[in-house]
Amino acid sequence: MLSAELGFQLFEVHGAADALAHPRYGHLDRDTLEAMLQSAEALAVERFAPIAAALDETEPRMVAGRAVTAPALAPALRAYADAGFIAAGFSPEIGGLGLPTSVGTAVMAAFGSACTPAAGYVFLTAAAARVIEAFGSAPQRAQFLAPMLDGRWFGTMCLSEPHAGSSLLDAATQATRMDDGRYRIRGDKMWISGGDHDAAENIVHLVLARIVEDGRRSDALSLFIVPRIRVDGTPNGVQLTGLNRKLGHHGTTNCALSFGGAGGCFGELLGAPGRGLECMFHMMNEARIGVGTTAAATAWAAYRYSAGYALERMQGRRAADGAKARLVDHADVRRMLLTQKTIAEGGLSLCLFGACLVDRQRCATDDGTRRTTREMLEVLTPVIKAWCAERGVESNSLAIQVMGGAGYVRDHPVERLFRDQRLNPIHEGTNGILAIDLVVRKARRGAGLEPLLQAIDAEVAAALEDTAACAAARCVAQHVAAASSTLRSVLATIAADKPPQAALAFATPIALMTGDLSVAWMWLKQTRAVAALDDVRAQAKRAAALHMVTHLLPQSFGLAATVLSGAAAYDDLPPETFAEA
Amino acid sequence: MLSAELGFQLFEVHGAADALAHPRYGHLDRDTLEAMLQSAEALAVERFAPIAAALDETEPRMVAGRAVTAPALAPALRAYADAGFIAAGFSPEIGGLGLPTSVGTAVMAAFGSACTPAAGYVFLTAAAARVIEAFGSAPQRAQFLAPMLDGRWFGTMCLSEPHAGSSLLDAATQATRMDDGRYRIRGDKMWISGGDHDAAENIVHLVLARIVEDGRRSDALSLFIVPRIRVDGTPNGVQLTGLNRKLGHHGTTNCALSFGGAGGCFGELLGAPGRGLECMFHMMNEARIGVGTTAAATAWAAYRYSAGYALERMQGRRAADGAKARLVDHADVRRMLLTQKTIAEGGLSLCLFGACLVDRQRCATDDGTRRTTREMLEVLTPVIKAWCAERGVESNSLAIQVMGGAGYVRDHPVERLFRDQRLNPIHEGTNGILAIDLVVRKARRGAGLEPLLQAIDAEVAAALEDTAACAAARCVAQHVAAASSTLRSVLATIAADKPPQAALAFATPIALMTGDLSVAWMWLKQTRAVAALDDVRAQAKRAAALHMVTHLLPQSFGLAATVLSGAAAYDDLPPETFAEA
Repeated sequence: MLSAELGFQLFEVHGAADALAHPRYGHLDRDTLEAMLQSAEALAVERFAPIAAALDETEPRMVAGRAVTAPALAPALRAYADAGFIAAGFSPEIGGLGLPTSVGTAVMAAFGSACTPAAGYVFLTAAAARVIEAFGSAPQRAQFLAPMLDGRWFGTMCLSEPHAGSSLLDAATQATRMDDGRYRIRGDKMWISGGDHDAAENIVHLVLARIVEDGRRSDALSLFIVPRIRVDGTPNGVQLTGLNRKLGHHGTTNCALSFGGAGGCFGELLGAPGRGLECMFHMMNEARIGVGTTAAATAWAAYRYSAGYALERMQGRRAADGAKARLVDHADVRRMLLTQKTIAEGGLSLCLFGACLVDRQRCATDDGTRRTTREMLEVLTPVIKAWCAERGVESNSLAIQVMGGAGYVRDHPVERLFRDQRLNPIHEGTNGILAIDLVVRKARRGAGLEPLLQAIDAEVAAALEDTAACAAARCVAQHVAAASSTLRSVLATIAADKPPQAALAFATPIALMTGDLSVAWMWLKQTRAVAALDDVRAQAKRAAALHMVTHLLPQSFGLAATVLSGAAAYDDLPPETFAEA
Repeated sequence: MLSAELGFQLFEVHGAADALAHPRYGHLDRDTLEAMLQSAEALAVERFAPIAAALDETEPRMVAGRAVTAPALAPALRAYADAGFIAAGFSPEIGGLGLPTSVGTAVMAAFGSACTPAAGYVFLTAAAARVIEAFGSAPQRAQFLAPMLDGRWFGTMCLSEPHAGSSLLDAATQATRMDDGRYRIRGDKMWISGGDHDAAENIVHLVLARIVEDGRRSDALSLFIVPRIRVDGTPNGVQLTGLNRKLGHHGTTNCALSFGGAGGCFGELLGAPGRGLECMFHMMNEARIGVGTTAAATAWAAYRYSAGYALERMQGRRAADGAKARLVDHADVRRMLLTQKTIAEGGLSLCLFGACLVDRQRCATDDGTRRTTREMLEVLTPVIKAWCAERGVESNSLAIQVMGGAGYVRDHPVERLFRDQRLNPIHEGTNGILAIDLVVRKARRGAGLEPLLQAIDAEVAAALEDTAACAAARCVAQHVAAASSTLRSVLATIAADKPPQAALAFATPIALMTGDLSVAWMWLKQTRAVAALDDVRAQAKRAAALHMVTHLLPQSFGLAATVLSGAAAYDDLPPETFAEA
């Protein structure tokens, strides 16, 4: 049975079925999409959710130079691949189902809420295959796509290095061209998810490196395909040098890798030389929507678990009449559950909206639509990833708090989900870097955040003009309008400031405001989608929407006055401010 | 060497040495107090900090019905007891040093920042000994205090039960009086920290139970002393039935215990029958200041570690000139470090202030001072515990974020400190229950929060009249004054609302506002204490004080409008709002 929530968001709120009018989806209809989603949810519940605790308890070990994973992992990933989900988003010509990104993102939410650390391997494989599909030569596509899409070979992204985490421009791995056209790869990579494991026959690394010619290293980075096992079956000089032992996300190996050494390590250039970052960033929008989706899904899983517990667990007395109470009968517990619902369902909604924009951009028949959709996506993508991760940590912490001591122990999954979630503000661009991308690079340039703000204002106007809109929708619309206006003032203040000291200092608070406003917009969309209904579900949607604008928005927007006052940036502080006295 | 921060807070900001004028501290002078603190910090650094990682990795195991702890634990606790720290706060007549609570709290901060999970055993032992000192008969004091104060016997608090976590009034453990005056104890206890272990010769449980007479259970709860081993050396029928496997705080065992069974379990009534909760709550103020202190200390430890890392680690380029940068050179990293400093040092300051109030109450020579000090403490105690725990989780999360991937792995202590910190909003009264205590019980009754608000307003007035006050102090004072005024309006709105639906719904946001305001007050005190200085340390204090009022206050006070608008409470929502659709 299709989860009511995913189906509601996809088809009722975001009209994902509209994309089916495009010829590229001529082979699909809404029934097929719903069937796909149902089978994804069934597989996630039957094969992924049951192994989540075991993957957490059985951390990957390094044995004889290889990463050994929990025995439950490989069969689940095999089932995922066999059901066609790695290939699902690719075109039928290369064995895929040609699924719209919106539906693929809902599939991701289903698996992400069941067990993100397991799903990570196959999500990464699909992302790596996307880059090869986009930039690979015909022989590269022919050689790598088929085994990756059917899950015999998995993929990775090898970007960071021990001395260069976020600062990719400092990557030092070298690629020396050989006479046969291949490149000899030498260097160390760090923080590589799925960098080694025993769940696939081969691992296809996409490695960022500098081409060395005549002993000089290029200033620009290039991208290389570096399989762990060569096509002739011999090892390709990729050594696992360490496994990171992490707070959470135990199911996904995270590796230090060394390329080179005995026998040499060889790779093929992928895309044009010196264009490695562009090739990687081609799929970065979708990858970041993916991280946002798993973050929202991780919050969603913990919300549903803690809500189920609160509906059952007897504790204390009702304030009104002193009768024995369930946890859910206490106002403060309701506040915590409603905050979680607001974040989890609001975050899912924003991710699915972003995914629909990807489809819309792809299907656009005119340049104007394509351009405005792209502009909107460029602004929303960092917001989707950073907001879902940031508010997701809050939401997962509340799931623990609702359950009290029970939430703090490993008998229940919420402490694990909290640990897993804490990764999301860090990887695929730290939240701070994404905030700087949004505020310093995007908001201060060209149309800035106007495409987003104008779309929000248009929805507000439509809601206020809609005679069928309920009181809640009107109230939400008014709050959203006020926040949109405030954000415009904040952005104007920041834009006037050159050099961008204040923008750098306030990037994170402004990104949070932008995220809260965007998600409040999603809640306005949701109240409008249930306008004609008055069942428990519709009432709950209205309550969460009101909670969003009265409890979340006012906190982040409380900082608007600070930004508007032009308070000092942090540049004047000597670094010794933070030295131990 | 005495940590500059603890000494500054204790003596420069809060004038802890003033208490020495009282005859009860006639045997002490400031040099002695500083020497005590120095030896505490030395022991914490030499014996507690080095075992923290091992205690985390070596979780307690249940072997043959007993809890087996990490081998490093017992020797560290032995050293703590041998140095006289369990006894330090007790009067010299019973072997203590008669240390003021303020200095004892600074000692706690030193050990808490080194390894709270280890220190938990001895903190709990001192707290249990306090109850026996206050309510025990002469024979009970003679029998139990000496072995507890010298650390041969440890103590616990056995309050919660499997079906009654926060809801202590539902405790069902029975105590049946026997002919010899002892009581036969039968029942199950849950979430007992230090409930079993191998680090002391005996464990003295303080057990909350209902006296049964003529087959009828009393409505009121009584308190019993129940040693694990009887005075004659035979086991007293206390079974370890389970060890909770937790997110963090691995070093402290957390146990399910069963009292009764073969051979019987016997206890002695402690204090008057039916007054068990009052006896426990006698030490609850200090216990809650203690939890606040370990929470602030846990944030402080992670702040210092992440700041040290940021001062060393090269990453990226400076925005201003493109030169290679350290993490600390980036504005967003400075924002995260400053937020941590604000929370950690502000929280420590509030805890030490609360501890000074405990001393002031104890030394008061007139009823007026005693009463106003008690009123202030009653209001501040839940704020201290809840605020340090709540903001502490944020602060510890930021320590991870500053370090990026390195913060997420076990090579560094910040992920452990984050897991340890997450306990604090849950135990010793959940933050939600403390918020209700503050807002529904205390703020709406009698003088409410006036003692606190008046003290804050008096400090603001003094700062604004002080011609020597710096610009930062004036700016902080103005923000504090505005927040104090807003909180008064919020509390008036809540007080007018009977029955207390809105108070229950808004308790947590109002408690956070109260905490932010109280800590902003501490930062005002700190800026005043460094008014005459302009070294890096003084500048850093001023920067953190400004950060408190421009970045933390505006977020929680952003919710004031929501409370003032009298928005609906959550009572109208059907519980099915939170059921899965």
